[in-house]
Amino acid sequence: MTLDDQLAYLTKGCVDVVRAADLRRKLERSAASGQPLTVKVGFDPTAPDLHLGHTVLIRKMKHFQDLGHRVVFLIGSFTGLIGDPSGRSKTRPPLTPEEIAANADTYKAQVFHILDPERTVVDFNDRWFGPMPAIEWVRLAARYNVAQMLERRDFRQRFEAGQPIAIHEFLYPLVQAYDSVYLKADVELGGTDQLFNLNVGRDLMPSYGLEPQVVMTVPLLVGLDGVEKMSKSLGNYVGVTEPADVMMRKLVEDFRGSDGLMWTYFTLLTDLTPGEVDALRTRFAAGEVTATELRYDLGRRIVADFHGAEAAQEAEQAVRGRHLLRQTGGAGAAPLVLGAEGAGVAPVAAEDHPAGTLLRRLLVTVGFASSGSDATRKITQGGVRLDGEVVSDVNAMLPAGEVTLQAGKKQVLRVRGV
Amino acid sequence: MTLDDQLAYLTKGCVDVVRAADLRRKLERSAASGQPLTVKVGFDPTAPDLHLGHTVLIRKMKHFQDLGHRVVFLIGSFTGLIGDPSGRSKTRPPLTPEEIAANADTYKAQVFHILDPERTVVDFNDRWFGPMPAIEWVRLAARYNVAQMLERRDFRQRFEAGQPIAIHEFLYPLVQAYDSVYLKADVELGGTDQLFNLNVGRDLMPSYGLEPQVVMTVPLLVGLDGVEKMSKSLGNYVGVTEPADVMMRKLVEDFRGSDGLMWTYFTLLTDLTPGEVDALRTRFAAGEVTATELRYDLGRRIVADFHGAEAAQEAEQAVRGRHLLRQTGGAGAAPLVLGAEGAGVAPVAAEDHPAGTLLRRLLVTVGFASSGSDATRKITQGGVRLDGEVVSDVNAMLPAGEVTLQAGKKQVLRVRGV
Repeated sequence: MTLDDQLAYLTKGCVDVVRAADLRRKLERSAASGQPLTVKVGFDPTAPDLHLGHTVLIRKMKHFQDLGHRVVFLIGSFTGLIGDPSGRSKTRPPLTPEEIAANADTYKAQVFHILDPERTVVDFNDRWFGPMPAIEWVRLAARYNVAQMLERRDFRQRFEAGQPIAIHEFLYPLVQAYDSVYLKADVELGGTDQLFNLNVGRDLMPSYGLEPQVVMTVPLLVGLDGVEKMSKSLGNYVGVTEPADVMMRKLVEDFRGSDGLMWTYFTLLTDLTPGEVDALRTRFAAGEVTATELRYDLGRRIVADFHGAEAAQEAEQAVRGRHLLRQTGGAGAAPLVLGAEGAGVAPVAAEDHPAGTLLRRLLVTVGFASSGSDATRKITQGGVRLDGEVVSDVNAMLPAGEVTLQAGKKQVLRVRGV
Repeated sequence: MTLDDQLAYLTKGCVDVVRAADLRRKLERSAASGQPLTVKVGFDPTAPDLHLGHTVLIRKMKHFQDLGHRVVFLIGSFTGLIGDPSGRSKTRPPLTPEEIAANADTYKAQVFHILDPERTVVDFNDRWFGPMPAIEWVRLAARYNVAQMLERRDFRQRFEAGQPIAIHEFLYPLVQAYDSVYLKADVELGGTDQLFNLNVGRDLMPSYGLEPQVVMTVPLLVGLDGVEKMSKSLGNYVGVTEPADVMMRKLVEDFRGSDGLMWTYFTLLTDLTPGEVDALRTRFAAGEVTATELRYDLGRRIVADFHGAEAAQEAEQAVRGRHLLRQTGGAGAAPLVLGAEGAGVAPVAAEDHPAGTLLRRLLVTVGFASSGSDATRKITQGGVRLDGEVVSDVNAMLPAGEVTLQAGKKQVLRVRGV
C-alpha cells in the first residue's frame, strides 16, 4: 500500500482525525525506521458483551495491525478498582482484581476474532497507577486546569445546570491522558464521545517531553432499525457471540436502514478499502447487484469473522432456504433446510431477472456464489441445476420463464427470465 | 475556670467559631473523660520569619494548651515537597526534605517562646500522604465537588475572571481536610483566609465516620501604623526575633493605632482574659492609666514572652530613658541609660500631672510601677526620689511646680504639678 492508501485505509469511516498530517508523518517515520506505531485504545473493565457497534473501534485497531503496527488493548483496571466512590453512578460498582481478570478474558475471547492476538498487547493501567506516589498525582493534576476541564460538554452542562461534579471526575481524563504518557502512545483511538479525553492526552504529552499522540474517533453505529444507535436494550443489534445463522438472518432480514447505512456498514464493519467499497457502490448503482445480495455479502464477511468462512456459508444457505420457503410457500422442488419460523409463510412471486443473463453471473447476483470464479467452479463441479437438471455449460444463460435455480443441496430459488 | 470562662478565653478575639455549641460540647466531654482535645493548626513549610501578626494564631494554640489540651503543630511538608508544579507561583518552589526539617527547627525556635514544647506535637503531613495509594487519592477527591470548591472566594473570582485554576489547586483543600481526618482533630485553627479550607475538613470528616471538627479563625493583625495589616514588607511590624529593646520601642513609640487597636492588641497578643482586658479598659476610661503606660504594659508582656521578664524590664527602662532624654534635652538629674539615637533630641516640656496626686498613683501612671502595690513597695524600699530626695511617706503627693521624679537608678522623668 502506498502511504496515501494507508492513510485512506486507516482513516476510513473516522469522525475526527487530530491531525491527519501528524498521522502521515508518524507513518512515514515508522516506515523509514521499521519501528511500528503504538496504538492505544482504552476499554472499561466491566463485563463486556459486545455487539457490532463495538467492533467498529476494534476493527479500526485491526486496520493498524494489518499495516504492521502494535496495538495496546488497555483495560481501565485502575478506575475499575475504584468504581464510583461518590456513589452516584450505580453502573460503576468497584470491581475486584479477579472480576477484572475474568472480564479481560471475556474481552479476549470476543475481540480476538477480529484482532491478531500476536500483535495485541493486553495491558492494565493499575500496573502504573497502583504504585504511583501521591506526589506524582498532584503533579499530574497541576498540568490541567478547571476551565479546560469544563470545556467537556457533559461537565459544562452539568455545571451550568447546577448538578454536582465530584472532583475525582476531573481526575479520570487525567488518568486516561497519563496512560498515553506511560505507554508513549503514537495514536489513541476511541468513540466520538471520547474526543475530549483523547485530546487531554494529546495536550499533556508534550509536558512530559513526548510528541502528542494522534487522536482518531470512530462513529457510533446506527442499529438495524436504521434510526437509533445500535444497543442491546433497543434490540436493534447483532451480538458478536450470537450464532452464525442468527447474525446472518439479522443482517439480511432485519436490516431496515437506507442504502446509505448499508455503505456505512461496509465501511465500518469490514476490511474493504475505501476503493473497494466505492467499486461495490458503482456495481450496485449499475444494477449489477441487488440490495439483498449486498446484505448477504456483508453478512458473509461479518459472520466469517466470528464463526469462520464455512459457518458463514452454512448460515447463508440457511437464511436463503428460509427465503425460498417464503417464495414458494414450502413447495420447493429440492430438499431445503427450513427454519421452524419459515413454515406456513404465504407464497410470493419468483425473482425476476433478465432472460439471457449468464448463469455464472446470476449465481453471484442472488448470492449463491461469492464471485464469478466461485460460480464457474460450482457449475464445473456439477453443483448447479435448473429445474433439477445439472448445468454443464459454464456459459449457460437464464431462459425466459420461471425456473428453479439450485446450487448445491441447500441453495434454491425460484427465478423468472423476463 | 468554669466552662463559660473557658469558652470566653478560647474564643476571645476569634472571627469565626463553627460552632460554639460544638466547642462547648467537646469541652464538656473532654472534662468528663479527662481526654484532652486535639487541636490542629497547619503551617507552611517555607522558612518562617514570624512577627506579632503570626503570634495571634500561635497564642490561640497556647490558650488551648493553657486549658490542658493537645496541640498539633502540623507542617505542610507534603505540599512543600511538591511546590507549585504549574510553575505559576514563584513563591512556591519545591523544598527538599532537609530544607523542610531546617524550617521546622526555625519554627520551633520561634514558637516555643509561646507554646509549651511538652504539650506540642510537631508533625509533618507527608508522613501519611507519602505512602497513600493512588486509589485512596481518587476516593478522597470523590468526596467533594466542583461547585463546592468554586464557593471559595478566590477560586470563584479567578474562574469568573477567566484566570486558570489548575486542577491540583482543588486537591490542596482536600489535603488539608484529610490531615484533620488522619489526626482526628477536634478543633482546627487558622487565619480568616483559611475559613473555607477549614470547613472542607469539617465537611469531610463525617464521611470518614468522624465527628466534624470545630473551626476557629483569628483575624489578621493591623500593624503599628494602625492602617495596614502587619507585614514585613510594609515595615509596620514587630518581629519575634527582634531584640527586646527594639520590640519595646516599636510598641511604645511607633504604635500609631487608635485606642481600639490597643485593646485589640491586648486581646490578641496577651493571655489576659476578656474580663481582665475589660478591667483595664475601665481603668483607662477612668483616667487611672495613660495610653503610654498601656503601651508599656503591653510591651512588657510581649517582650517577656520572647526574651524573659528581666529583659523586658531592662528594655522598658531603656525606652523610658530615651523618653526622658527627649523630655529634658539630655539634662536629666540622674544617671540615664541612653540609646545612641536619643542624643541631640531637642528638649521638651515636663509632663503635667495634677498637683496633689498620690506619688504611688503617679508612679503607676507614668509607668515606673506596674501597680499600686508595686509603687508602694518601691517607696517603702527607698527607691523613689523627688528632686534627688528619697520619698519615705507612702502617702506623699506631687507638689505644685516642676520636679524630677526618679524610681530606682534608671527611671527618671520631669513632671510638673499643676
